[in-house]
Amino acid sequence: MEFQIHNPLDMHIHFRDGDMRDLVAPLTSETFSGALVMPNLVPPVMNLEDLKAYKSRIEQSVWSDNFTPYMTVFFHEWLTRNALEEIKDYVTTIKLYPAGITTNSEGGITSILSDTNKRIFGDMQDLWMILSIHGETGDFVMDREANFMPNYLEIAREFPNLKIIMEHITTKVALETMEMYPNLHATITLQHLEITLDDVAGGALQPHLFCKPIAKRYEDRDALLAAALSAHPKISFGSDSAPHPQSAKECCGCAAWVFTSPIALQVLTQLFEENGKLENLQKFVSDNAVNIYGLTPNTKTVTLEKQDFTVPEIYGNVVPYKAGETLAWSIKSIS
Amino acid sequence: MEFQIHNPLDMHIHFRDGDMRDLVAPLTSETFSGALVMPNLVPPVMNLEDLKAYKSRIEQSVWSDNFTPYMTVFFHEWLTRNALEEIKDYVTTIKLYPAGITTNSEGGITSILSDTNKRIFGDMQDLWMILSIHGETGDFVMDREANFMPNYLEIAREFPNLKIIMEHITTKVALETMEMYPNLHATITLQHLEITLDDVAGGALQPHLFCKPIAKRYEDRDALLAAALSAHPKISFGSDSAPHPQSAKECCGCAAWVFTSPIALQVLTQLFEENGKLENLQKFVSDNAVNIYGLTPNTKTVTLEKQDFTVPEIYGNVVPYKAGETLAWSIKSIS
Repeated sequence: MEFQIHNPLDMHIHFRDGDMRDLVAPLTSETFSGALVMPNLVPPVMNLEDLKAYKSRIEQSVWSDNFTPYMTVFFHEWLTRNALEEIKDYVTTIKLYPAGITTNSEGGITSILSDTNKRIFGDMQDLWMILSIHGETGDFVMDREANFMPNYLEIAREFPNLKIIMEHITTKVALETMEMYPNLHATITLQHLEITLDDVAGGALQPHLFCKPIAKRYEDRDALLAAALSAHPKISFGSDSAPHPQSAKECCGCAAWVFTSPIALQVLTQLFEENGKLENLQKFVSDNAVNIYGLTPNTKTVTLEKQDFTVPEIYGNVVPYKAGETLAWSIKSIS
Repeated sequence: MEFQIHNPLDMHIHFRDGDMRDLVAPLTSETFSGALVMPNLVPPVMNLEDLKAYKSRIEQSVWSDNFTPYMTVFFHEWLTRNALEEIKDYVTTIKLYPAGITTNSEGGITSILSDTNKRIFGDMQDLWMILSIHGETGDFVMDREANFMPNYLEIAREFPNLKIIMEHITTKVALETMEMYPNLHATITLQHLEITLDDVAGGALQPHLFCKPIAKRYEDRDALLAAALSAHPKISFGSDSAPHPQSAKECCGCAAWVFTSPIALQVLTQLFEENGKLENLQKFVSDNAVNIYGLTPNTKTVTLEKQDFTVPEIYGNVVPYKAGETLAWSIKSIS
């Protein structure tokens, strides 16, 4: 049995930089037509110059003319109208991080709904730019996403023509929030379709399943999976795949994030097939993103076959999601 | 500034066995007059013979005539009336574990309210024995304790003269449940007076703060702390201190439990002093347990002084709670 995915897109990826970028960017470019590259480097990608330089470094890592890194810039309060006009043809979205909420977000925003930010939101709306948001507050870990929802609602209401992406949503309440305004959209990761806090900390502690936002309750996981399986047109796949060296995961005080890129399509195919919704996977991993972000992706066809594939224990120095597990689908060819 | 604690008691301790027992039992016996020793060895302490042998091994580790290991037996469905009568003068409590709920609990109980168990509860009530319970279901990790509460209520109602200890409670709802029947009592650990899930998984993942039951919400932590600070007469200190070798904590799939024994009195003194309730600490760490369990503890006076004490990074091969942190109180002398 075979299954084909055309022009797969990953609308939320972390390539980091340097050696790690050289390791992981090719793993994404091999199977995906394009990916939205997050800007939270140290220091972040702040302007057109940073963006061009980072894009060039990614292209050197990738050595492929059949993959597009869709670029982002780190939202900051000095984004003047001129700066926005300068970058608008080069970025796919501008990514807003609340300050200190995740890896390398120290320079993020402390007051989401400030006058300064609203001026920027207004300018972005005028210029038909897209705003990506990591939607978490600094509250109790299980409440952080839910407590952020009023921010989404206020921005969506005040800027009805600003397209907003609720990144890596993990809760039922986020899905319900997304439905309240036509300009709210979302991405969902692979792991949040599969795991709950029980998988992270219900038995032995599993650092390789620890990510931010943290996996939530069964009712949240089930709602996210139902939305993905139905290929909800406002939702794209965004792996949020993020590499950390093994040494930073298996230690005291280990880093958040899950690394899924090289196995994402195989796991998604298995998940959609098991749930009898294989016909909707093309929309979830490509067509919805084409519509939401207005993309013209590279032509790439990934042919999967139903044949066991054992996930490597490690890629370079990065332990992947489902390391050592056997999946029901493998990649047969890419053209 | 000095402060004295008389006859401190730890009403929930894990000594394990073998080399680990030799390492940790002396750390408890040094500062405590007595401790209630949990029976979840491999295999568990099931009968009088096991109990006597384990007690003898503990006494060999401890080499002290000024410390009493209060013994427990693992609750199992073959506890006949005769078996209970045989052990009743040797045990302080019988400890019930739901099957598979924690370390070495595989042989525990699958159906808490079975007819067999109720027969045993009735016999224990007749014999004035005490029932300790690890009160968690197999549900979502944040709900496990709350969902167990109906079991406590049914046992307390049906066996009004059976003294029941709700072990290591972690939630506000458990405190509220305890108040509903006079025969419900509880222990609280040190870490659950201080931490929430945010400390375990809100920033970087902290395996040395990972325990079962998992730390809960701020409102839970605050309610537990208020109950301890007020020296609620139905609550004793039970550290649930449990040693795991460093290798089993700093790994993928790391073991639950926090090791607090050698620093418990120093941290408790600091915590009660900071909250202006130092006068209640004697009840929380000794007098309440004397009343609840009917003990006549060894005479031991621990004198603490307000002088910085840096917690060792490791005891043997076990990393303690607050490793490397500096506490405001240290132990000056023990007599």
